[in-house]
Amino acid sequence: MQTDIEIAQAAEVWPIEKIAEKAGLTPAEWEPYGRDKAKISVDETAHKSELGKLVLVTSINPTPAGEGKSTVTVGLADALNGIGQQTMVALREPSLGPVMGLKGGATGGGYAQVVPMADINLHFTGDFHALTSAHNTLAAVIDNSIYQGNPLHIDPRRLLWKRALDVNDRALRHVTIGLGGPTSGVPREDGFDITVASELMAILTLSHDLMDMKARIERIVIGYTYDKEPVTVKDLGVAGALTTLLKDAIKPNLVQTLAQTPALIHGGPFANIAQGTNSIRATKTALQLADYVVTEAGFGADLGGEKFLDFKTPLLGKHPDVIVVVATVRALKMHGGLPKTALTEPDEQALATGLANLGQHLQSMTRYGVPVIVAVNRFVTDTPEEIAMVEAYARDFGVQAYVADVWAKGGAGATELASAVAEAAQVASDFKPLYEADDDAVVKIEKIVQTIYGGAGVELSDKAAKQLREFAKRGWDKLPVIMAKTQYSLSDDAKKLGAPKDFKIHVREFIPKLGAGFLVVMTGTVLTMPGLPSHPAAYDIDIDENGRITGLF
Amino acid sequence: MQTDIEIAQAAEVWPIEKIAEKAGLTPAEWEPYGRDKAKISVDETAHKSELGKLVLVTSINPTPAGEGKSTVTVGLADALNGIGQQTMVALREPSLGPVMGLKGGATGGGYAQVVPMADINLHFTGDFHALTSAHNTLAAVIDNSIYQGNPLHIDPRRLLWKRALDVNDRALRHVTIGLGGPTSGVPREDGFDITVASELMAILTLSHDLMDMKARIERIVIGYTYDKEPVTVKDLGVAGALTTLLKDAIKPNLVQTLAQTPALIHGGPFANIAQGTNSIRATKTALQLADYVVTEAGFGADLGGEKFLDFKTPLLGKHPDVIVVVATVRALKMHGGLPKTALTEPDEQALATGLANLGQHLQSMTRYGVPVIVAVNRFVTDTPEEIAMVEAYARDFGVQAYVADVWAKGGAGATELASAVAEAAQVASDFKPLYEADDDAVVKIEKIVQTIYGGAGVELSDKAAKQLREFAKRGWDKLPVIMAKTQYSLSDDAKKLGAPKDFKIHVREFIPKLGAGFLVVMTGTVLTMPGLPSHPAAYDIDIDENGRITGLF
Repeated sequence: MQTDIEIAQAAEVWPIEKIAEKAGLTPAEWEPYGRDKAKISVDETAHKSELGKLVLVTSINPTPAGEGKSTVTVGLADALNGIGQQTMVALREPSLGPVMGLKGGATGGGYAQVVPMADINLHFTGDFHALTSAHNTLAAVIDNSIYQGNPLHIDPRRLLWKRALDVNDRALRHVTIGLGGPTSGVPREDGFDITVASELMAILTLSHDLMDMKARIERIVIGYTYDKEPVTVKDLGVAGALTTLLKDAIKPNLVQTLAQTPALIHGGPFANIAQGTNSIRATKTALQLADYVVTEAGFGADLGGEKFLDFKTPLLGKHPDVIVVVATVRALKMHGGLPKTALTEPDEQALATGLANLGQHLQSMTRYGVPVIVAVNRFVTDTPEEIAMVEAYARDFGVQAYVADVWAKGGAGATELASAVAEAAQVASDFKPLYEADDDAVVKIEKIVQTIYGGAGVELSDKAAKQLREFAKRGWDKLPVIMAKTQYSLSDDAKKLGAPKDFKIHVREFIPKLGAGFLVVMTGTVLTMPGLPSHPAAYDIDIDENGRITGLF
Repeated sequence: MQTDIEIAQAAEVWPIEKIAEKAGLTPAEWEPYGRDKAKISVDETAHKSELGKLVLVTSINPTPAGEGKSTVTVGLADALNGIGQQTMVALREPSLGPVMGLKGGATGGGYAQVVPMADINLHFTGDFHALTSAHNTLAAVIDNSIYQGNPLHIDPRRLLWKRALDVNDRALRHVTIGLGGPTSGVPREDGFDITVASELMAILTLSHDLMDMKARIERIVIGYTYDKEPVTVKDLGVAGALTTLLKDAIKPNLVQTLAQTPALIHGGPFANIAQGTNSIRATKTALQLADYVVTEAGFGADLGGEKFLDFKTPLLGKHPDVIVVVATVRALKMHGGLPKTALTEPDEQALATGLANLGQHLQSMTRYGVPVIVAVNRFVTDTPEEIAMVEAYARDFGVQAYVADVWAKGGAGATELASAVAEAAQVASDFKPLYEADDDAVVKIEKIVQTIYGGAGVELSDKAAKQLREFAKRGWDKLPVIMAKTQYSLSDDAKKLGAPKDFKIHVREFIPKLGAGFLVVMTGTVLTMPGLPSHPAAYDIDIDENGRITGLF
C-alpha cells in the first residue's frame, strides 16, 4: 500500500496559475510561492455578490482510532466538483511541531489530500513562522520594557504573554528567564506555548484586514501592573510593528487537492483555547469565488463545531448551509468501550453503545436549524451490518447517513454524499443561535454545557467566580466564550467516552483574550506545549540528493 | 531627504522573471516567491565553464560612524553594470532580530540598495525561519532523548547545543528549562542564541548540496556523554529530518538592486563566530552566470576579510580577483580619537592618526597577492583635502583610492572605482594563502594575529591549552580556525582603535564546530544574543491599510 506522501508525490500537480484561473482569480489577486503555492488578496466585494453555499464538516469526539475529518472534507469537495458543482475547500494549516513528533497529517490522506503535501506540512508560505516572530518580538519588547526601567509598572509575576515556538518541546513548558546577572534582564518565571496556541494565531484568523488586525493586536492584554490594571500592546506601542510582521501571513494560501480542486489553507488555531477553524478571510474569499465551500472545524462538534456556529458565524456574517458530521465505525466502537486493539473485529454491541456519542452531536447540531448529514468514513474492516446500524441510528434523528470512501477512491468515493449535501444546501434554513450576544458568560457556558454537551450544569472554582466579578467591572463579562475542554469526551473528563450524562463542567479559570475578543473557559488543564514521543517522527524523516522526502507520514 | 525605505518604495522594480532572464537563468532554474523574489537551483556545471571575476568588498574596523560596506558593494555592482560589465552582486541576508532593535539595514542604503527592501529585512523567503525550526527541533530531540531514558548517556551539564530565535532578547541568554515536574522534562541550564549564530547557519552557507549539508549536520557535536565522549547529530538520528527542514533554505535567493542588477542574497553567518559571508552556493552560482560578481564579507578585513581569504576561498575553489577596502573619512577620524559628535568638522590631525587603521588592513590584504583598491565612501561633510589625504596615504601602500558616492548617486557615483576594479581584475594574480591546511591551530592563530592584526602574539588560557590537547587526541587540531574577536579593534580590546601595536590576543577557549568544519577561537566574550535598546526600532515601525510600511529604517 502506498503511503500518503508517495501518493502525493505521484500526483499530477497543476501549476498554481492554472488553479488560480480555475478558482476565478484575476492575476492581480494572487502571487506565487514556488510553482504550486500562492498567496491571495481578494477584495471583499470583488467577485460574486451572492455568496456560495457553506458546508461545515465536523465530527464525533475524536478517538485514537482516527476519524479522518480532513480526509472527508477534501474528498467531499472533490466529489462536489465531480458532480459538476464549482467547489473550493477551506482548511487549517498544519503545525510543524507535531509533524516532527507524531505521524499523522492535517492535509487529508490517501486519495483525498491537498498538495504539495510535504511543503504544506513543513514551512508552507511561512505564516506560522511570521506568527512565531511577532509573538516573540512582543515578548522581547515586554521584558525589555521591564529591564529599561519598567515605565509601565508591569508586574513580572502577573504576565500573561509567554513565548512561542512551533516545536513539540516539553522542556520549554516551564522555564526561568533573565538569568545571568544585571546585563541579561530581570529573572522571572515564564514558559513557551506552541505557536498555534498564540493569541496572535486567533487574531490572524479572525481579522478582516490589516487595520482590523492592528486594532485587535492593540487590545491584547499582556499582563497586569503592580496595581493589577491590565497592560495592553497599545500601551507598549508595538502593534504597528507586529502587524507589519504579519502583513503577508494575513493573506490566504491557495493550493489544490489531488483532483485539482482549488484549496485555501489558512491559519490553524486550536479548537479548545481558540476558535479552531481556518481564517475568516479565507472562508469569505472562497464563498465569493465558488458555489460551494467545504470547510472543517477542529476536534468534535462539541468543540470546533460549537465554536464555528456560535462564535465564527456572527463574525463571518454567514452560517453553514449544511453540517456534515463525520463518524467511523471504529471510533464509535471505541466510544462503546472497545480497546484500540479490538477494532478490526465486528462488535455490534460496542457499536450500539458508542452510537450514543454520535446521537448527542446530532441532537446538538440539528438544533441550529441547518440541515445535518452524517458521513461514515469507511475503513476496510467495516461490515455492511455495522454501516447499516449507523445509518439506521442517524435516521432516528431525522438525519441521513452516507458512506464516504474517499481515502481509497478520492471524490469518486463520496458521490452520493456530495449529491445529498448539494440538495440539502438548497433548503432555505432558519439559523437559530444558541445564545444571545449579551448573555452573561455563565449563561453562555450553561447553554453550551446543557445543549451541546448534554451535561447537567456548570461549577465555577472560587478563582473563576472571582475573575467574573473582576471582568464585570472591566466590561469583559459579555464577551463570547471559548470552551477549553478535553476533545475526547463530551464531559471534562477525557475518560468518559460515549455520551455521559448528569455530569457537571468544572470551570477552573478564565483567560481573557481581548485581542481575539473572547474569554477562554478553562475546564481542567489544556496542554499548550506538546512533548515528543519516545520515537519522534523526526527519526524517520529523510531526504535524498534529488530532494525526495521519505517518512514524512 | 528621503529615507531608505521611501527610496526603495518609489523604485521601479522589475518582475522577477525579467531579472531571472537578465541573469541568464532558464525557467527551470528558478521559482518565484511573490512577484519580486525567487529561489534558484543551478547545477554547478550548467552555465559558463570559465567563472566570472570575483570582487571582495571588505573594510576598515567598523565604528559607530558607519562605513557603508553593503552600500558600496551594491553601488559598485551597479557601476560595473553601468560601464557595460555583466555583473551580479552576492550579499548576506539580514537578521530580523536587529531590524526590530536598532535601525540600520543590511540591504545597502540610499540609491545603492537591493529591493524589495522591506521583505528582505522581514521574513524574505523564510531561510532564517527554517534554520530556527531546524535548530529548535534538534534541541527538542536532545532534551526528549534525555527525558526518555537518556539512551545516549548525554550529560545535561555538558551540552553545547542551545536553542535559537531570530529576536533580540537578552532575557533568553541564560535560562533554566525542564521545570514543572516529572512530566515536563529534566531541569537544566540552557540559553538562546540569535539564529544567525547557529552552527546550522554556518553549515547552510558552506554546503555544496543537500547531501553535503546532511553529512555536515551529522557531524555536529551537540555535547558530551557522562564519559566526556562527543555526541553527534548522527547519534541522535535526525540529520535527515533537519536537512528536510532546510531543503528550500539551501537555495539562493534572487532579487535586484535599484538599478535592476541581479542580486543573490543568501545566508547570514556572523563574521566572528562563523565565516561571515554569503553562501558558497550563491557565490558559485553567480560566478557561473556573470562576468563580475561583487560580494562582501562581514565586519572589517581582520575578521570577515581574513575568513573569506583563508577559509572560504579553499572551499569555493576560487580566490577573489580584486579586494576593495571600504573606508570613510568619518570612521577614520574616529579611529584617530574623535568622538562621534565631532565628526562633521574637518580634523586632519585625527584623520592622519586614524589612517593607521586603514594602513594595517592594506598591509594585510596586499600580502595575499591579489590587487587591492580603496573605496572612500563619501559623506556630505567630507572635504576635498581629507579625501586627498586618504588617497595619498593609500598610494604609499601601492594602492589606488577612489571615491564612491553611491548612497546619493547609485552606480553613477562609482564609475571610476568600477573601471579601476575591472582593470585590476584582468591582472593575473598569484594568490598566496596565509597558512597551510595542516598547520596546527596555534600556528594558524599566530599567523593571523601577527600578519593580519599586526599583533605580537597569542596567549592561551589554561582551559584553551587543555582543550587543544584533547582536540589533538580526537583529530580536531588541524581544523581551520575562525577567530571570534571584537570587530571594533584589530586587538581583542574593543577600545583600542586605530592600529594598536605590541598587543597579544588572549584565547579564552575554543568551540568545536565539527559540522561547519572549524574551531571557533574565542577571544574575550562574544554576545550571541543581542538585547533591545531603550527605544527599539519596533516602536517606530507601522503599516497602513494599503500595506505601506513606515519607520522600517
